[in-house]
Amino acid sequence: MSSLLPNALTGSSSSTLVADEIEKSNELYVTKRGAKIDLEEIGPKPTRKVALICCMDARIDAFSAFGFKEGEAHVIRNGGGRASDSIRSLVISQQQLETNEIIIMHHTDCGFFTFQESEFRQMLKTKGFPGPSVDEMSFMPMSSNDIDQNVKEDVEYLEKHPLISDQSKISGWVHDLKDGSIRRVV
Amino acid sequence: MSSLLPNALTGSSSSTLVADEIEKSNELYVTKRGAKIDLEEIGPKPTRKVALICCMDARIDAFSAFGFKEGEAHVIRNGGGRASDSIRSLVISQQQLETNEIIIMHHTDCGFFTFQESEFRQMLKTKGFPGPSVDEMSFMPMSSNDIDQNVKEDVEYLEKHPLISDQSKISGWVHDLKDGSIRRVV
Repeated sequence: MSSLLPNALTGSSSSTLVADEIEKSNELYVTKRGAKIDLEEIGPKPTRKVALICCMDARIDAFSAFGFKEGEAHVIRNGGGRASDSIRSLVISQQQLETNEIIIMHHTDCGFFTFQESEFRQMLKTKGFPGPSVDEMSFMPMSSNDIDQNVKEDVEYLEKHPLISDQSKISGWVHDLKDGSIRRVV
Repeated sequence: MSSLLPNALTGSSSSTLVADEIEKSNELYVTKRGAKIDLEEIGPKPTRKVALICCMDARIDAFSAFGFKEGEAHVIRNGGGRASDSIRSLVISQQQLETNEIIIMHHTDCGFFTFQESEFRQMLKTKGFPGPSVDEMSFMPMSSNDIDQNVKEDVEYLEKHPLISDQSKISGWVHDLKDGSIRRVV
C-alpha cells in the first residue's frame, strides 16, 4: 500500500498498534499510584461483595461511571452485557470470592440491537468462516428492541439459573450514553 | 438477626446494597462529565480498533491501568480473563465493530490459580447445586501455575480459532497487582 496514506488507513504500520502504546500509558498509572496500597494486599475478594455485568462497549468507563474503586466490585463485561454469557464468572464470584449481589447494566445505543442472529451467521459464512463453527455459537443479539424488556429478561434468567445462589440480590439497570446517567429497571 | 450486629455482618439491611448507592455515585460522574461530548455521538466502533480481554478481578481499573479513554477500546472481562470465554464478544467486536487488535491481559494473584475443576465441581454439588448443571460447565481454572504459560496458551487459542480473523494483531501481557505495572509476554 502507498506509504503516503496515513497509518490509520493503511493499517500497515506497527505504530498504530495499541500494544506499542499501552506500556507508556501504564507507566503513568504506576507513577500516579505511587505510594498507594499494594493491590495484592487487598486480596481477590470484592470488598462491596458485588459483581457488575455490563457491555464491552468502548464508551463505558465502568469504574468512573458507576463509582467503583479498586478492590470493590467484580466487573464482568461481554458483548451486550448478557447474563447468559456471565454464568461461569458469576459462579466463581459467588462461591469462591463471596459476592452476594449482582448488578446487570445494559446501555442505550448498544450494538446488540443492530443485528439478527440468522443474518449475522449468513454474513460470517459469506466471509468464509466455517459454517459448523458459526452455527454452533449463539451471538446473543437482544431479543427485543425494548431495552427495559431485555434487562428484565436478563435478571429473570439469573434468578432462575440453577448455578446462581438463591440468596443473590439482583438488580437491573439502563445506562444512558447520551449523558452518562443510569436508571433502575428492576 | 440481632440489630446490634453491623450491616456488613448480618447482610440483612438494604443499606449494604450497592444497588442503593450506585445512583449517587453515578450522579457525580454525570455532573463531572457535564458539557463533555454525548457518548452516543462517538458511536459504538472503538476508535483505537482494539479489544482488551482481562479478568473480572475487582482490583483492576481497566481504563486507568491501561490508559483508555471513553470510546477507544472494547473491554471484555470474565473470570481469569480467559480467551476461550471471549469468542462471542470478539467476533462481534471484529465483524460488526471493526476492531483488528486483541490484547490479552492476565494478572498476578489471580483467583483462577487457586482451584481445580474437579474439586470445585465437587464443592458445588456438596452445597446442593444440581450435578448435571455443574458438570456441563467448565469453570476454566488456569492450566498451569506458570502465568506466562497461560498467557501464551490464550494467545495461541485465539490465533487458531476458526472465528477469529487471521488478520488480528494479538499480544499477551501480565499485569502485576503489586505495583500496577504490565509486562508483555508475547
